[in-house]
Amino acid sequence: MGSTTVAAAFGAVLRDCRQKAGISQEALADSAEVDRTYVSLLERGLRQPTLETLFRLARALSVSPATLVSRTTVIVG
Amino acid sequence: MGSTTVAAAFGAVLRDCRQKAGISQEALADSAEVDRTYVSLLERGLRQPTLETLFRLARALSVSPATLVSRTTVIVG
Repeated sequence: MGSTTVAAAFGAVLRDCRQKAGISQEALADSAEVDRTYVSLLERGLRQPTLETLFRLARALSVSPATLVSRTTVIVG
Repeated sequence: MGSTTVAAAFGAVLRDCRQKAGISQEALADSAEVDRTYVSLLERGLRQPTLETLFRLARALSVSPATLVSRTTVIVG
């Protein structure tokens, strides 16, 4: 299990949740108080979030942090 | 919600899970392939894990990553 795999899986989950929420990367970044480019990097699996950032993204998406992680786990396998 | 709070909450969860597993910080570090001092820092809330590290710690403790996060969420409130 490499970091690329976890990061890529999380990126896919994040993008899906954001699109289902119907908001742009910029809107998510503003709401979660992270850099706008950072959301793009996360969704492409080029960065991985810290626990704190995970909590902020989840809050901005109105989902639980555990849900994001659980969905990531399913993809990682 | 500050990073200290999330980090401190995760640290408490990590320590509890490790103690319930009956293993030392050193054994957990070896199993999760992280630095030995890092586990101590995490448990004291002085560091927060990346998503990748969260997955490795969970695997080493035979719990799901989402369980660690869910328990952290309860403490953060």
